[in-house]
Amino acid sequence: MDLLNNYLIYLIPVMGLIGIIVMAIKSAWVTSQETGDASMNQLAGYIADGAMAFLRAEWKILSYFVVVAGILLAWSGTTVATSSPIIAVSFLIGAFLSAFAGYLGMRIATKSNVRTTQAAKTSLAKALKVSFTGGTVMGLGVAGLAIIGLGSLFIVFYTMYVTSKGEAVNGEAMAKALDVLAGFSLGAESIALFARVGGGIYTKAADVGADLVGKVEAGIPEDDVRNPATIADNVGDNVGDVAGMGADLFGSYVATMLATMVLGREIVSHDSFGGIAPVLLPMVIAGLGLIFSIVGASMVKISKETDSVQKALNIGNWASIVLTAVATYFVVQWMLPADSFHMLRDEDANGAVKAGSLVFTKNGVFGSILVGLVVGTLMSIITEYYTAMGKRPVLSIIKQSSTGHATNIIGGLAIGMESTVLPILVLAAGIYGSYFFAGLYGVAIAAAGMMATTAMQLAIDAFGPIADNAGGIAEMSRLPEEVRGRTDNLDAVGNTTAATGKGFAIASAALTSLALFAAFVGVAGIEHIDIYKANVLAGLFVGGMIPFIFSALCISAVGRAAMAMVEEVRRQFREIPGIMEYKARPEYEKCVEISTKASIREMVAPGLIALITPIIIGFAFGPEVLGGLLAGVTVSGVLMGIFQSNAGGAWDNAKKSFEKGVEINGEIYYKKSEPHKASVTGDTVGDPFKDTSGPSMNILIKLMSIVSLVIAPHLNSADNTSKMMQKQEKVQSMNVHQIHVDKKI
Amino acid sequence: MDLLNNYLIYLIPVMGLIGIIVMAIKSAWVTSQETGDASMNQLAGYIADGAMAFLRAEWKILSYFVVVAGILLAWSGTTVATSSPIIAVSFLIGAFLSAFAGYLGMRIATKSNVRTTQAAKTSLAKALKVSFTGGTVMGLGVAGLAIIGLGSLFIVFYTMYVTSKGEAVNGEAMAKALDVLAGFSLGAESIALFARVGGGIYTKAADVGADLVGKVEAGIPEDDVRNPATIADNVGDNVGDVAGMGADLFGSYVATMLATMVLGREIVSHDSFGGIAPVLLPMVIAGLGLIFSIVGASMVKISKETDSVQKALNIGNWASIVLTAVATYFVVQWMLPADSFHMLRDEDANGAVKAGSLVFTKNGVFGSILVGLVVGTLMSIITEYYTAMGKRPVLSIIKQSSTGHATNIIGGLAIGMESTVLPILVLAAGIYGSYFFAGLYGVAIAAAGMMATTAMQLAIDAFGPIADNAGGIAEMSRLPEEVRGRTDNLDAVGNTTAATGKGFAIASAALTSLALFAAFVGVAGIEHIDIYKANVLAGLFVGGMIPFIFSALCISAVGRAAMAMVEEVRRQFREIPGIMEYKARPEYEKCVEISTKASIREMVAPGLIALITPIIIGFAFGPEVLGGLLAGVTVSGVLMGIFQSNAGGAWDNAKKSFEKGVEINGEIYYKKSEPHKASVTGDTVGDPFKDTSGPSMNILIKLMSIVSLVIAPHLNSADNTSKMMQKQEKVQSMNVHQIHVDKKI
Repeated sequence: MDLLNNYLIYLIPVMGLIGIIVMAIKSAWVTSQETGDASMNQLAGYIADGAMAFLRAEWKILSYFVVVAGILLAWSGTTVATSSPIIAVSFLIGAFLSAFAGYLGMRIATKSNVRTTQAAKTSLAKALKVSFTGGTVMGLGVAGLAIIGLGSLFIVFYTMYVTSKGEAVNGEAMAKALDVLAGFSLGAESIALFARVGGGIYTKAADVGADLVGKVEAGIPEDDVRNPATIADNVGDNVGDVAGMGADLFGSYVATMLATMVLGREIVSHDSFGGIAPVLLPMVIAGLGLIFSIVGASMVKISKETDSVQKALNIGNWASIVLTAVATYFVVQWMLPADSFHMLRDEDANGAVKAGSLVFTKNGVFGSILVGLVVGTLMSIITEYYTAMGKRPVLSIIKQSSTGHATNIIGGLAIGMESTVLPILVLAAGIYGSYFFAGLYGVAIAAAGMMATTAMQLAIDAFGPIADNAGGIAEMSRLPEEVRGRTDNLDAVGNTTAATGKGFAIASAALTSLALFAAFVGVAGIEHIDIYKANVLAGLFVGGMIPFIFSALCISAVGRAAMAMVEEVRRQFREIPGIMEYKARPEYEKCVEISTKASIREMVAPGLIALITPIIIGFAFGPEVLGGLLAGVTVSGVLMGIFQSNAGGAWDNAKKSFEKGVEINGEIYYKKSEPHKASVTGDTVGDPFKDTSGPSMNILIKLMSIVSLVIAPHLNSADNTSKMMQKQEKVQSMNVHQIHVDKKI
Repeated sequence: MDLLNNYLIYLIPVMGLIGIIVMAIKSAWVTSQETGDASMNQLAGYIADGAMAFLRAEWKILSYFVVVAGILLAWSGTTVATSSPIIAVSFLIGAFLSAFAGYLGMRIATKSNVRTTQAAKTSLAKALKVSFTGGTVMGLGVAGLAIIGLGSLFIVFYTMYVTSKGEAVNGEAMAKALDVLAGFSLGAESIALFARVGGGIYTKAADVGADLVGKVEAGIPEDDVRNPATIADNVGDNVGDVAGMGADLFGSYVATMLATMVLGREIVSHDSFGGIAPVLLPMVIAGLGLIFSIVGASMVKISKETDSVQKALNIGNWASIVLTAVATYFVVQWMLPADSFHMLRDEDANGAVKAGSLVFTKNGVFGSILVGLVVGTLMSIITEYYTAMGKRPVLSIIKQSSTGHATNIIGGLAIGMESTVLPILVLAAGIYGSYFFAGLYGVAIAAAGMMATTAMQLAIDAFGPIADNAGGIAEMSRLPEEVRGRTDNLDAVGNTTAATGKGFAIASAALTSLALFAAFVGVAGIEHIDIYKANVLAGLFVGGMIPFIFSALCISAVGRAAMAMVEEVRRQFREIPGIMEYKARPEYEKCVEISTKASIREMVAPGLIALITPIIIGFAFGPEVLGGLLAGVTVSGVLMGIFQSNAGGAWDNAKKSFEKGVEINGEIYYKKSEPHKASVTGDTVGDPFKDTSGPSMNILIKLMSIVSLVIAPHLNSADNTSKMMQKQEKVQSMNVHQIHVDKKI
């Protein structure tokens, strides 16, 4: 047991390695599956090439960004004692691993799609196995790389700054180790932002463009091989829903662990791990979650055509969550000491805990983790309710489609706004509850508990776009009804999992941001974030506005790119004779290029807003105003994220409901009816909402928090400078207005 | 001068009285104008009857509410020493005067409309004079009643609690006087909420219903006498845009004065007014603003048909603002003492000002007032930019109409979100600047400065719907082109003033809420609102969500009511033969009844949310969490208000642009083209945005702040109770989890 205690820190990256090994095995299995006929392979090749073309273009831009940001970080690391230029190294590693995880996911997704189509020729069970294994490869890759990266870097920095110098585990040296480690999270989250925003713009520009001309004007079905934008549309599913979502969750996963570790440092713990059990705990939980995700994933299978795919996924998901929760209980009991915890800052000069301080126990920590699991589950359930077919919200939109386009839109917007109520109440109760059990550390560890089974969540999420692509290839290759039926079955389940996955992603982003927010306050060395102060309140207002302008930029980027796509598709139909008769091949690559260029160009402005705003506000107005800004961004971002994602999801399923026919006031309406046309308008409006701006909110709030955390030591040590500036201001204002200015402003 | 010093307090209601006398003279002049032929009179009669029917129905419901709320207030007034049951009396007076001001405005508007139509037979100048005089009556009535009410009640309570008992002017007795006075503001704001929400639902249910069947299905023009919903539509202009806007600004006007007075009490001032100059100042400024509004209004005139109506309005508006600003400068110099101010709480036991406290001078106070004027002006200019024809935002929506309904909607939503950026920056700078000049008192007096010329603002606002109605009567009575041309000219200007008026209203509501927020903190006896505390942060999240659910309820209420209206209009066209041939009169009263019933029924749920939430949160979680809630509501409410109002305004003018033809990619499109149809969809979606949910945000944030201010003394004195509860919680949690809970949670 002693041996285990001593080597636990090394076990963490080993758990990540186990994930990667299992991933490699599963990846080899997928690759060994049949790929079908030449036409299928050709189409799959186009999709894979398009996806790689996007990644290459994205990486090119991002490499400039990473180099510039790395140099700035290295320089800034030299300016304060609690940081180091080495932060640039962990930043680069974080950025590289995030990009690499996206690459792995995309490569396996573009292999799994055609193999799923081929498998669907045999049976639904086989098709599910191929597509879900593809998803599992993505999930294990993301989680495995994250744990290996964060775990190894922690070992390096912990040894370098703390143990090799015999420093205290909750002193300045450890703070420095964790600050340098925060660079890893910053790198991961920066890449995630561009992947999410760029991917989101890509996928929706292609989708909206393909639909508006193909479906509406030319009257050809979705995924028809004659539509020049159809390959771009399928590429989009990969770059947006696979690589974008993967990078998003990679970022959340790393950031929650990091925030918990930063808060864990401030906790005085008399444990058998040299006092760093609260720091190690989030990584151990993540490792356990990864192992049990492998177990859960192995349980996802069906045997008959009539078996429920959703049920199979649910069994696997629940198994991994329950097993992780049980294992976490024992790990908490084993790792954490029996006596109570308190924060270092709550000790007086003699090392005694000040009266009235918050103290908590290991049972409290486990309580917080359970709160996190409950919050994640409830968020998924609520999201599903608001976006599922046959439930009140979607039915109300269907009903309002009968009076036209406008009432359909009004209905969807109202549903989206309404859908913020329950998630916010759950989140508020979660904040309250996890704080109740274990203070701010509790808020962070709740997020870590929720994120533990990220590998499984991501496997389920990535399965959706793979099935979607498989269906696309089946349609484009004009395979028999039966095959398309099986892929449609998988795709329908994929739509539900996409909705619940979004609920999970936003909940995780919200809790992650709160954890980072709490960590920021500690590192920045401030006592309060008092919105009663005019400047902090002004920061709160400006912060609240940022998700609005960020959404506006994303939405209008999709609008512009989609219009360029519409014009290109119209041009090809006009100028290339024989497309409609299957005699000429459309110039798919032109459409791919439009989406690629537009998404790369348009992702820059929103990305810079997220990166630069906290830096400007922090240095110009100090850490407390920055705290107000972060609170504003988080509250408004979570609201806008839920509003837009759910409105989009509900519009989508309202439209899909017409495929099987819907009853409005006693009459049955099908596709091509007037109400259906109105529902298509809603779906098109909802596309950028649910796949571009909505999910980007997650990364916006996380990235702004992590940037703040990284600059926090500078703001802290800049105290003297800012006090000097305040003095000058005081003198100046006395001269001009005979006013003394309180140091609070 | 001494005499003036002693009697200034009595001069305040006298200034209000002057406003009312001028109003009566102008009202008599309007009434004495010609009313036109029998058909016009009949139609105007329908409109006036419909408007009164709505008011009666509304008053019936509100009288129950007012009685119940009054009894609760009276009872609660007995429970703490710093309040009194008399608060119920000032609540009733506030509610009555708000309702009465709405009644006055509506009565004169329903008289002015037909007289404007008749005057338009003669000349544009005459038509402007009649319609603008009608608006002026409304503006003077609202401002006059507010000043008389607040000023007289202040004299009564000041005498009763302070001077007659020889109490200190900044002690508990004065706090009690102002708390009782806050009931007046609560009464006004409560009525305003229901008037704004109910009126907003009424007007848009009628408008959307009339358009969807009349314009789209039956193909008859707007305001056609054959449309059964057309009278309801015209009634809606009065109940929504006149009575709703009037009640809204009446509430803001009173609330800003009150908040400044509450903060003024806490200021130590060595002046010639017994130390209450900071308390009197906002009322004196409001009185001056009223007088100079009369002067400005008299300057609004044109002589030739080709003169610019907009220019005439601008001259009057600017004259009143500049004159008020200049007069305010002298009043500030005269009333406020030469030495500096500080807050009472910043004094130590010996009466000396503690080091580092905020002190400011009378020049600082004037600086804050200027900041308020600048903020109000900038907000109006920005709003106009985002909603005006021919500017980039509206042009971008026009362009996106060419690719269909969906891209038009996406374009409008993106513009609405983008339009939050500049107003928020202006507002944040305004908060920062006014605080810099004169602390929290500065924030409040900035709002008061901005609201000073409310009478003029409201005159301009109310002129719009009067002109709109006049055009409606001209169309329904099938008067010559020339007449309709003149009313259209006025109506077009009215659309612009409606947009800028909304910018002004939201800016005033935001500053009012901040002033109330600051006053709340003082009265509740808390030191900070620290969002670093988990429970305050949870409050911030819940607060941020409330504008979303409030908007959802308003929007879906309009959707439901409009669908009922659509069915009724379809029924009448089907079942009443001869309507289309002008042979049978449609049953206008049925449509009026639908709008009335729906609006009364649907206004209850959002109204109760606004009233009850702060009470629940305040008593269950204490004043600091309530402070977090208020901050969340204010930030999110201001953002949602700007987003929705501007998106709606931009969609509206994008649609209107098609009337004169617009160029998209080299082609000219007119009404009935496909892009125009798409723009109609946007306009219909925008209707509830800009006239129901958007403007309701103003009252939502104000009302929740004023409710909090009224309950603040109870939360303050409830301190002991809540500490007891915390102790119990502590004991309980120690038993169950061995956790000590910090008193902060």
